[in-house]
Parts: sequence; structure tokens; C-alpha cells
Amino acid sequence: MRFRNKPWAKDKIEQYPQYIVPNPEQCRGKWKEAFERVQPLHIEVGTGKGRFITEMAKANPDINYIGIELFQSVIVAALDRLIEAELPNLKLLNVNASDLGKYFAKNDVDRVYLNFSDPWPKTRHEKRRLTYKDFLKLYEDILVDGGEIHFKTDNQGLFEYSLKSFSQYGLLLTFISLDLHKSDFEGNIMTEYEQKFSEKGNRIYRSEVKYQNEK
Amino acid sequence: MRFRNKPWAKDKIEQYPQYIVPNPEQCRGKWKEAFERVQPLHIEVGTGKGRFITEMAKANPDINYIGIELFQSVIVAALDRLIEAELPNLKLLNVNASDLGKYFAKNDVDRVYLNFSDPWPKTRHEKRRLTYKDFLKLYEDILVDGGEIHFKTDNQGLFEYSLKSFSQYGLLLTFISLDLHKSDFEGNIMTEYEQKFSEKGNRIYRSEVKYQNEK
Repeated sequence: MRFRNKPWAKDKIEQYPQYIVPNPEQCRGKWKEAFERVQPLHIEVGTGKGRFITEMAKANPDINYIGIELFQSVIVAALDRLIEAELPNLKLLNVNASDLGKYFAKNDVDRVYLNFSDPWPKTRHEKRRLTYKDFLKLYEDILVDGGEIHFKTDNQGLFEYSLKSFSQYGLLLTFISLDLHKSDFEGNIMTEYEQKFSEKGNRIYRSEVKYQNEK
Repeated sequence: MRFRNKPWAKDKIEQYPQYIVPNPEQCRGKWKEAFERVQPLHIEVGTGKGRFITEMAKANPDINYIGIELFQSVIVAALDRLIEAELPNLKLLNVNASDLGKYFAKNDVDRVYLNFSDPWPKTRHEKRRLTYKDFLKLYEDILVDGGEIHFKTDNQGLFEYSLKSFSQYGLLLTFISLDLHKSDFEGNIMTEYEQKFSEKGNRIYRSEVKYQNEK
């Protein structure tokens, strides 16, 4: 993915500390208090332009959401949505997914969403895939026991890889659709990519996996 | 599936005890001795007209094969193939998959193949699917430790169900293809159904799972 450089993005981000949390490490272990209401927290890793997380936050006011996006030139689009929607249960973090452990502690998060993550198709880039085992460990370390990952992609190779990676890690597969838009799954909120790729005729794959307690 | 009644099938089966084992319960725990050569044993549950298992036996003389098929009117087609091919490493069993434990003991089998099994799409028929947990237990009880199930189907619902069932049972997913005929998988041997359904444009799904030793 290539982004247009947006030199003004940094300034804009700093203008909205109520939406894009400026010092997220200070909230580590106490994210529940960072929102108006104490309720479950779901995060999206790689939130892009923010359509999914914004629509989810509108549809589910009894859940708090955080969208995480590394690229400033992209997160400003999510910020614009949030400014317009004025949602008290949604915040954004402009940080790297590899650093999740710096900003979240065990039990801070109830669910992780991964939507149309970069497939990194070359084997030598496996470690960058957001479903690589090291990332599964990162999520485990910030989720509650029995926490879930909900994952969507149109990339067949990434989906195949991820199912194997989940299994290898010991995650329990509780939901799978190999053609989401032709299934009876209700309440799907499309991401920007999802709309684009499904209009091109691509199948959308979706899975839910759950961390299991020690047996 | 509907079969033409073939009243002569029973007689024909009895004429070839060297191919369709007449008293398989007598081989329980000693299948290695039932073949010319002592080597790994792979079985196909629901072998149909036998194209897959016959071609596998031809291609892999260092493995013994058993094709299991309940319907006499179907297994006679596999018998015809076997009579023609004269393979010392292939036998057939005309028994019900639910009774596998009567005919095989722990460690008798090294691998189970399931190809284009009946999807039994109605929820009330879940227990009849060959990837239902009770069948996974049956296979475990006759396989070696670390034994594998290799599974192919064109039925999306059955494949989704089976991936969840495998995960729930604690099986390790070691291979998956969501579009086998467009993948770089080598050495695929098509079943009769596979050829028919892929010619209709259906995707073929394939997975390999492995029983894990106690951790």
C-alpha cells in the first residue's frame, strides 16, 4: 500500500487528544477509566480509514472501541469520521501493533479485530503478518482469558496461513465462513477494502477464534 | 445419493475374498500381517467406486491401503478396478464406518482419508458426518499416535463444519487449501466426484490434521 504524504497530518492528530490518545502508555492497565462508561473494550489492529470501527461503535454503544493505526496519513481519515460522529465509546491510537504490550496490560481488552490485514505473501515476511505466532502472543498478553480474535480478509493465502497459525497456537475455532457475503451471517459491517474487493468478485473469508484456558 | 440395486453384488463380493476381506474382525490388531509386505497402512473411509484408493495404491507401492465402503452396489465398482489392477497392497472392506473399532485396533492405521463424504447438511444429521466428534474418536482409537486425517470436499458447509470440529477436538491443522486445483499442491489424485464437481466449477477444499500427543 502506498500513501500520499500528508505533512499536516501530525498537527491535526495533536489537535484532537480526546480522540487520538496522545500518551496511551499512561492508560496501560486502566483503559476502562479512559472512557465515559466502564464496559467491554474491543480493539481493531490496523484500523485504516476507520469505517469498520466507527460503524461498530455507533451500532454498539455498550462496548468501548479503540482503533489502532500506524500511518498518520491514514488515521486522519478515521479521525475525520470520528469528529463527525462524536462517539464517546471510540478512541484511536497512532501506534505500531508490535508495541501493543507497551500500551495495554493483561485483561485490558475483551476482543481483537483484524480486518484485511496486509498479507505479506513472501515467506521471508511471515513475521510481519498480524496472525504470526508472535502477534498471537501479544494479543494473548492483553486479552482477558477466553478473549477472541475476529478476522476477515479476502486474501486466500493469508486466510489459509492464519487458520494454521491459530491451530498451531492452540486457539479454538468457533466460527468460520468461506464466503461471508453469501452466508447467513447477520450484522456484518464492511470495511473500505471489503467493499472494494467484494465488488471485484472476491470472496470474503471470516473466522473467530478463542484463547483457551489451560486444560 | 441413490444407487441402482444390484442383486448380484453380494455374490460377486464373496467370490473375491482376497480383495474384499470376508471376516475383517479376525485381522483386528494384526493388519500388518494381512498384506504381502509389512508397511504403513492408510485407509479411506467411504471409498465409493474406488478410483482414489486404487490410484494411490498404484502410485505408492510402499504403503498398504484399505478402502472401506458400506454399499455393496458401489463397492463392486471398486472391486472391478482392483481385479483389473491386481494390486497386492490394496484391500476393500464392505463394512459400516461406525463399526471401525470392531475391525481395527489402536496402531493398526497410520492415516485416514476422507474424500467427498456425504455432507448431511441438516443439523439433526450432524452425528452422521464423518468429521463429527464421535468419528474423530473412532479414528483416534485405531490410528498411531500422531496419525493424520486427510480430507477433501467441494462442500463448503461440510468443510467449515469440519474445520471447527477438528479444532474443537484438539487436532492440529497442518495443511489447508481453499482452492486445491488452483494451488501448487502436487500429486493430487482425483476421485470420481472431484472430477465431476470441479468440472462444474466448484472449488475443491483440502485439509490435513494431526492427532497430538498429550502435552
